[in-house]
Order: sequence, then structure tokens, then C-alpha cells
Amino acid sequence: MRVAILAHEGFPDRAKTAVGILQYGDHEVVAVLDRTRAGERVRDHVPDAADAPIVDGIDAVGEPIDALVVGIAPIGGGFDETWRPDVRGALERGADVVAGLHYFLGDDPEFADLADERDAAIRDLRRPPDDLTVSEGTASDVDAEVVLTVGTDCSSGKMTTTFELAAAARDRGVDAGVVPTGQTGIAVENYGIAVDRVVSDFAAGAVERMVEERAAEFDVLFVEGQGAIAHPAYSGVTTSILHGAMPDRLVLCHVADHEAVHGYEHVPIPPPGEYAALYESLAAPVAPAEVVAGALNTQRLDDDAAGAAVEEYAEAIDAPATDPVRFDAAELLPAVLGED
Amino acid sequence: MRVAILAHEGFPDRAKTAVGILQYGDHEVVAVLDRTRAGERVRDHVPDAADAPIVDGIDAVGEPIDALVVGIAPIGGGFDETWRPDVRGALERGADVVAGLHYFLGDDPEFADLADERDAAIRDLRRPPDDLTVSEGTASDVDAEVVLTVGTDCSSGKMTTTFELAAAARDRGVDAGVVPTGQTGIAVENYGIAVDRVVSDFAAGAVERMVEERAAEFDVLFVEGQGAIAHPAYSGVTTSILHGAMPDRLVLCHVADHEAVHGYEHVPIPPPGEYAALYESLAAPVAPAEVVAGALNTQRLDDDAAGAAVEEYAEAIDAPATDPVRFDAAELLPAVLGED
Repeated sequence: MRVAILAHEGFPDRAKTAVGILQYGDHEVVAVLDRTRAGERVRDHVPDAADAPIVDGIDAVGEPIDALVVGIAPIGGGFDETWRPDVRGALERGADVVAGLHYFLGDDPEFADLADERDAAIRDLRRPPDDLTVSEGTASDVDAEVVLTVGTDCSSGKMTTTFELAAAARDRGVDAGVVPTGQTGIAVENYGIAVDRVVSDFAAGAVERMVEERAAEFDVLFVEGQGAIAHPAYSGVTTSILHGAMPDRLVLCHVADHEAVHGYEHVPIPPPGEYAALYESLAAPVAPAEVVAGALNTQRLDDDAAGAAVEEYAEAIDAPATDPVRFDAAELLPAVLGED
Repeated sequence: MRVAILAHEGFPDRAKTAVGILQYGDHEVVAVLDRTRAGERVRDHVPDAADAPIVDGIDAVGEPIDALVVGIAPIGGGFDETWRPDVRGALERGADVVAGLHYFLGDDPEFADLADERDAAIRDLRRPPDDLTVSEGTASDVDAEVVLTVGTDCSSGKMTTTFELAAAARDRGVDAGVVPTGQTGIAVENYGIAVDRVVSDFAAGAVERMVEERAAEFDVLFVEGQGAIAHPAYSGVTTSILHGAMPDRLVLCHVADHEAVHGYEHVPIPPPGEYAALYESLAAPVAPAEVVAGALNTQRLDDDAAGAAVEEYAEAIDAPATDPVRFDAAELLPAVLGED
């Protein structure tokens, strides 16, 4: 799929979806739209991605595209009206538009009419399917091995770890697939359900459906977790994924030296060893799973400190650990694939 | 509020909301509509409720009413078209209609028009408010004492225990309120949010909002739990309530001799002592709370067996226990109110 990615005023640091697609997607990225960086190159900012020009708007994209992907989400998930000419321009040339905003572009009258007229599709990634139902408690019956990333907080590296592990497994010849549960993962995979937008009653059922669908295609599934089990706001989403996916093994993601829940500074994060035990005790009655590996985000540390932090983390959770971005996710594969 | 309750072909055993209102509501029930029992009396079936006639339809209700409450929910939560004349009849006389169905009566064109015309309101109890947001993690700051009922399964007595404890506390002069989280409780209290219908991300926030609102009115709150923490489908709802409400104390509800999750017979229910510990360990990192009492549903046992089962249950969870329907919820008050 040939795409342009909209990331005005946010590339790369506030354009998580854009960077996710560049790093992990199999899209052919023709251009990134960021009017504050027009003339620069993707490679200047994301060294491990395929290169592409950065341009100031859709009219500067000369090549044909299949879709324009909104690769940035402002706080609150709203639609920035300065993006309207780009979305309009994409639809006018018959390209699809893909977005993970809270504001559904498909409900915007101008975009809906234009899409109709040009036979283009608008895909709002956060809109749940309308035929979801309750979980049947059957995901543990699938033939695939199921590995779930869980975390000690939001933004603790679950999505990155999921994709890094899947890539490392594929490098080893394993037929590995990803089950994305958030909008960036969904944009990368062009598949998935944003579980946090699903009605509570159906959240586990949504995950179960994805695991069962993807298990028919792959031997090993890496399920992207959300939130954290001791998060004051999102623990329900986390629990629904844990019990809906019924994973065989868990990978615990944590940010080095991160001690209180982000945005909830009055809620301390339990020590990683306790946290791992909590996930295991909550999994046990529904579908037992152990924390077999750890992923530590050491971005804020220097190399020496990072190595020491990983070692300490591995000891705390009593399992092999690494920083899958700074070091190599492949180190975790024997444990994660159950070969130990 | 003077009401008639629709319960066609379901009263009393399949009309949980009707019976809940009769037992725990402060509504004045003018009549119950059940065409299969017309001519009988409420007292013939629900001995501990105020008496009222059972009639075959709205036209047989001679007295004025403020509202018709749909007191029955067929499997799937659909609307039974044979009820249409009753709903129409209620609206035609200017009465409100209150329902907890999945099918929203307010979206039915005939009913919506009629309500408009007669200046009557349609209240769909399962429709969440449209201004919900994420939890702020602040429910533990309220002045009221907060007691949450939790269970080992769905239908384990959480709603009944909540209302029985609140009534027993009021009998002792305690200024006790209920925070209902499901449609029957909401119909009884004429207040509340059906948490299972809330988007996952906002489920804890919905509970937090209710706790903060009701804490301004009452000294002690009894929060109605939903689902169970080891339930394959509904554990996300349970976790959102546990972390959103940030209760001071928990009451564990269980059905005697119930050993597998209802509808998920391949998932065994952990022993009550382990289950209590699991709730406590999940509560701890966000807002610590202990299981201070137990409510055992002994309906299927004879008197001797019931007494023995309660004793055994109390021992298993290491806390006072009773069957709040068969025996007396007041036995639990010292523990539940933290007076022990």
C-alpha cells in the first residue's frame, strides 16, 4: 500500500502513528506531510526507517497514493481544521483516508460526500465494529502460541516491544503475527480493534475475536497490551485484554526509574517483581500465564546505566530482560517462544 | 413516584428489575402488568413487598401514574413488540417510560414522537451519559465511607447485598446511600450509570463520578459491583469499578456450592479465600481495601445446610458472613462500617 502520512507540526516526536508505520509497517511511504519541516527527509529524524521526503501538503505529493494516513493525534483526539485541505485533496484524487482520531472523519459531511463521489474509503480506526459481543472464554483453544505484552503503566513500551518481538521472530523464520489493540498498531497492521473504545461488556470479546482470527493465519501471535493492571483509569481495558486473549506467556514492559503512574503521581507503581506476580495471579484463574521476559525502556539512561538497569530488572522479575530498541529483542526469543 | 411495572410473562422469577423495585425502591407501585397473571396480587409472589394488583395491560391501570417502568429484560435485551401497546398507552396519558433494555426506546420513532407530543420523558437506563471521561484517580478523597460488593461470578448477589446492607445501615440510623452500576439498581434508585455499557476507557471514570456525586449526599456509600475479577468476559468491568470506586472495604458475594463460572463451565471458580486475596491484591496498588465480610446465597440449601455453609464460608474468607436474604444483613454491619 502506497501512502502519504499527515503529521503537521508533530513529526517525529508527537507523531507516534507516523513513526510506527515507518518503523514497523509494510506500507510504501511516499511522503510525510509536516509543514514545519518541508524539504527535510524522514531519514533525518527516523534513522531506522525507509527514507521519504517531507512536504508541506498533499498537493506537493506528486506520486499516486492509495491512502493518506493521519499519523498524529492531538490531545483529545480532535480533528485539526488546518488538515482539511489535505484530507480533501486526498479524497479528491480518489485515495482512501485512514485515521485513528476520536473525531470520526467518516461522519464529517464534506468528507463523507467526497468519499462517496470519488469512490474512496474513509477508515476510522478507533470505530469499533458494530457486531461485537461478549467473550466466550475460548481463546486458549487456538493452535497458535499467544504472547501478550503487559506493562507497569501506559506508554511503557508495549506496542514497540510487540512489534520488535514479532520482527525478531520473523527474522528467525517463525511465522509470527501481531494482534494490535490501539490505533497506531492498527494503522501499522491495517487490521485490529481499538479496545479502549469498545463498550466494557464486549472488550474481552473483541480481543478474543482478533486472537481467533489471527491464529488461523500465524503460528505465533504477539498481542499488544494496553494500560496497566494497577492503573487507576485503564485497568479495565488491561484486564479485558488479559482475559480475552488468554495468552500462553507474558512480557512485562517497564520504563527504567519510572515510579509513579504517569498523570496520577499520587499512585506509586509497585516494584516490577510484585507487578509481575500480580499479572500472573490475575491470569491464573482464567488462563494461567507467566511473565517469561521483560522489556525495559532505558531511553533516559546512558549506555552503562542502561546495561545495569536491564540486569537489575531481569533479577527483579526473575526472567531474561532487555531494552528491545537499544539492544536486541532477539535475546528474549527463547523465553518468549517457550524454548527455555 | 407512582409507577406501573411491565413484566409480561415474567413476574416474578424472570422480572429482576420489577422485583428489585418492589423490594428496594421507594416507588409507589400502582400495578404490575403481567398478562399471564392478571387478577393475582404482588403479595402472592413477593411476600416482603407492598401489595399491588397484577393486571393484563396499561388500559387496566385506573389510577394516574408518573411512569411505566419496563421491569423485565428478555435475553439479548431486545424490545418485545407485544409490549408496544402498553408503552404507547403510558406515553399517551403523559406518563414517562423508564427502561433498561439494550434497545433504546428513545430511538424508536413512534415512541419518540409520542413522548414529544405529550411532553413525556423516555429514560433509557442503559444509555451512558455522553460527557463521560477518564478517571482522575480521586475517589479515595471523598468524605464518605465507601463499601463495594464484589463477587465470585455474575448473579452472585452483589445487587441484593448492596441494597440489604444499605437498608440495614439506615435502620441503624446511618446516612447510607447506594451507587448502582446496573440497570435494575438504576431503576430502583432512579439514578446511576450502567457501567457495562460505557466505553472501556471511561468505565472507571463513570464510577468515580457517581461516587463523588453521592458522597456529597451520604455518609456511607454501598457501591454495587458487577461481574467478577476472574470472569472470562466481564472482568474488565469489575476491575474498572474496583479502581474507579477506590472503596475502603469489600464484601465478597458468593453462591453456595457454585464451582464454575456460569455459562463458562470450563472455567472453575477459585476457592473463596483465594478469591478474596485476589481482590485485595488487585485493589492494593491503587487503593488498598480488604474483604471485611461475606454474603452467601444459600437459596438452594435447607436451613441446617445453610447455617453450616455460612460458617464454612466465613472461615474460608476469614471474615464474618451471612446470607443477607435468608438471615440478616445487619450481622455484617460492624465489620462493614469499620467498627470492629
